[in-house]
Amino acid sequence: MNVISHPSRTVALGFMLAIFAGTLLLMLPWARPAGQDTPLIVAFFTAVSAVCVTGLVVVDTGTYWSSFGQWTIMGLFQLGGFGMMTAATLLGLMVNRSPRLRTRLITQAETRSLGLGDVTSVAKLVFVVTVFCQLLIATFLALRLRFGYDLGWYEAGWSGLFHAISAFNNAGFSIHADGLMRYATDALILLPIMVAIVIGGIGFPVLHDLRHRYKDPRHWSLHTKLTLTGTLVLLVAGFLAVLLFEWDNVKTLAPFDMADKLLNALFISVSARTAGFNAVDISVLTRETWALHYFLMFVGGGSAGTAGGVKVGTVAVLVLLVIAEIRGHNDTEAFGRRVGSSAQRQAITVLTLGSILIVLGTLVLLRVSHFPTDQVIFEVISAFGTVGLSTGITADLPVSGQLVLALLMFFGRVGTITLAASLVLGERRMPYRFPEEHPIVG
Amino acid sequence: MNVISHPSRTVALGFMLAIFAGTLLLMLPWARPAGQDTPLIVAFFTAVSAVCVTGLVVVDTGTYWSSFGQWTIMGLFQLGGFGMMTAATLLGLMVNRSPRLRTRLITQAETRSLGLGDVTSVAKLVFVVTVFCQLLIATFLALRLRFGYDLGWYEAGWSGLFHAISAFNNAGFSIHADGLMRYATDALILLPIMVAIVIGGIGFPVLHDLRHRYKDPRHWSLHTKLTLTGTLVLLVAGFLAVLLFEWDNVKTLAPFDMADKLLNALFISVSARTAGFNAVDISVLTRETWALHYFLMFVGGGSAGTAGGVKVGTVAVLVLLVIAEIRGHNDTEAFGRRVGSSAQRQAITVLTLGSILIVLGTLVLLRVSHFPTDQVIFEVISAFGTVGLSTGITADLPVSGQLVLALLMFFGRVGTITLAASLVLGERRMPYRFPEEHPIVG
Ligand SMILES: [K+]
Ligand SMILES: [K+]
Repeated sequence: MNVISHPSRTVALGFMLAIFAGTLLLMLPWARPAGQDTPLIVAFFTAVSAVCVTGLVVVDTGTYWSSFGQWTIMGLFQLGGFGMMTAATLLGLMVNRSPRLRTRLITQAETRSLGLGDVTSVAKLVFVVTVFCQLLIATFLALRLRFGYDLGWYEAGWSGLFHAISAFNNAGFSIHADGLMRYATDALILLPIMVAIVIGGIGFPVLHDLRHRYKDPRHWSLHTKLTLTGTLVLLVAGFLAVLLFEWDNVKTLAPFDMADKLLNALFISVSARTAGFNAVDISVLTRETWALHYFLMFVGGGSAGTAGGVKVGTVAVLVLLVIAEIRGHNDTEAFGRRVGSSAQRQAITVLTLGSILIVLGTLVLLRVSHFPTDQVIFEVISAFGTVGLSTGITADLPVSGQLVLALLMFFGRVGTITLAASLVLGERRMPYRFPEEHPIVG
Repeated sequence: MNVISHPSRTVALGFMLAIFAGTLLLMLPWARPAGQDTPLIVAFFTAVSAVCVTGLVVVDTGTYWSSFGQWTIMGLFQLGGFGMMTAATLLGLMVNRSPRLRTRLITQAETRSLGLGDVTSVAKLVFVVTVFCQLLIATFLALRLRFGYDLGWYEAGWSGLFHAISAFNNAGFSIHADGLMRYATDALILLPIMVAIVIGGIGFPVLHDLRHRYKDPRHWSLHTKLTLTGTLVLLVAGFLAVLLFEWDNVKTLAPFDMADKLLNALFISVSARTAGFNAVDISVLTRETWALHYFLMFVGGGSAGTAGGVKVGTVAVLVLLVIAEIRGHNDTEAFGRRVGSSAQRQAITVLTLGSILIVLGTLVLLRVSHFPTDQVIFEVISAFGTVGLSTGITADLPVSGQLVLALLMFFGRVGTITLAASLVLGERRMPYRFPEEHPIVG
């Protein structure tokens, strides 16, 4: 474990450093419109939320912070998202001293579908895709805001840039107190944002596969196939479930015409898994839709992207395992490939530790506050999955509760990726095996 | 799958038949004090609850039903508990036509720690332990009620018998509307009931091991060691957590003196995992204690006993898997034994399917009722784990909601055991294997 705890620590330290610097910057008098003082907890919580690309806030981003403050926040979630996308690759680079580990990395870690040689090309790709995508979407949004809403060029450009970067990084920050509710019936705003969310959240291994083998889907890696299939299934299922649960809700979809109903159901489905934008008021969704959110927020997006949660690929492995077991197969299979048994154990471990974290977080928040259990669970999973959607209780939690949410964001974001890397790299064959025995199950 | 679906179906059919007969008996005019009509849903729900040894009720057992009705209910949960304890063994007996299956059974199924030869001795043991334990506890309770509470011999004897049988079968039925709250400060009532709950709920494979190898703990099966350790950990952790969460609750533990605080915290911890008796009012527990119940009720007791839930051994396998993975071990180990990989996959499957069932049940109940989410989750897990504790909403649910709970009880009880058996017996080695690939996790 020693050889690998080092780079994991480096990633964690990098994020802590960014949070520390962010907190300092947000404490500066220039971060507030009239140079007021900022309470430490507000600066700290905002910095954690931004660096961990979550979007949970205790103050309104657009009015509480000055222009400098908002640029700082945008810089922090840009840094957090970019850092997250490249951290897996960096983790790999830093431990490849031993050839055995190196081989393992090639076959098992994020780089496996990339080949170790082209790590720099990956970093380049990360950068190029990020900048290209963000500028394209920002321009599109800015033009729409300029000509569709009659905003001035500066205001339209700033809003377009902020929301494009926020969307691509799945950060969920908005400069409006009510999120994107003012654009709830504007497909020309919501659709580009959805595109940015999905591209940013699908993860770089998938993007790389798509780019280099877009003509040859049969040779995509199992990871790419699982992530794309899983994402599609989750998007469609979420869309249909939201339609079912919210169709008659007079506070959300009911007043919309058919096209806007469909648009907003899709937007909720896209955004719930990790982006955290809202075009309808989350606090008035039905409790069934909240429960749906628990699931979608826990799952999150693709590995090694800007998305949080336990990741689509992780849940896909669990589903495949259960299907194989029910069919009586010894092997967990998909797309003509066998899922490695260590990958299965890693998936179970990530899922179990994530669940334990959520249970503990919920218990503590129930202790320190008096909000209903369903809202507490919502906020806890939103923090863990770095989603940032809120039923509205975060700002009203006591400081201890907000610190718990900050911890959940950090562990949900940094913990998941370093845990997964540690598990892959920490593997070792034991010199002897114990005799096997089958305890009774069920 | 064909060869094994047969006995699984037999068990399920047996339980359905008992429910059908129970419903008919409870519809008879003699089942009510003045021969009134009984609505079908009331008779059906009560029969399901009794046969599945759950204890959720829509009417008060002690006043709604006549003496005949109460005897019927007692007969049903005695039958259900006994049937459950022996079903695993019967399942084994019925499929051992093929020598290959037979070998498998010996090594993998419930009979593995028993040897196939002494199945009849197991059935005898089930019967002897059941009758012996129940009569002993019933006598003890009857004497206490006769001399401690000045009840008449008949009343004391009947109450003692009913509660002893209910406790041993983890049925949770009581002839009092408020459960055991009137005995909340009487250790001479609560302690014997706890003993009956634990013995009935630990499961027969463990009892057999304890009886035949009580002097030689080192040769206990891995299943016995895991179940005993897990049970102890859960009892102690539950006890401490209840003390923490309820110490200051003026509606539960706060008014008690120290000894009664400890007694009642222990009783909640013992009863929550599947027995379903309550000595304090469940509806006024803190939300943290409710959340604790979600966990304990989901876990349940030992395999092949009167307890429900996914079983202690199943969760123990998950915990061992995660610990092994974190330590970087390829093998899941405990007590100098390696947990078979198929047992691990079975455990994950049981846990996943159980969780899915609970999520679906919760979603449906949220749709058809307006009770708070935390109470709905409580009732759903209580039904799935055949616990029978209630925050008080079951009787007020619409018929559709009560039918959902009845389904959950049936699947939670019959589904879990037949699923586990099917998984063990359905295993087959595939004629070829696909190439291995490691998707990214986390
Ligand atoms: K987010
Ligand atoms: K019960």
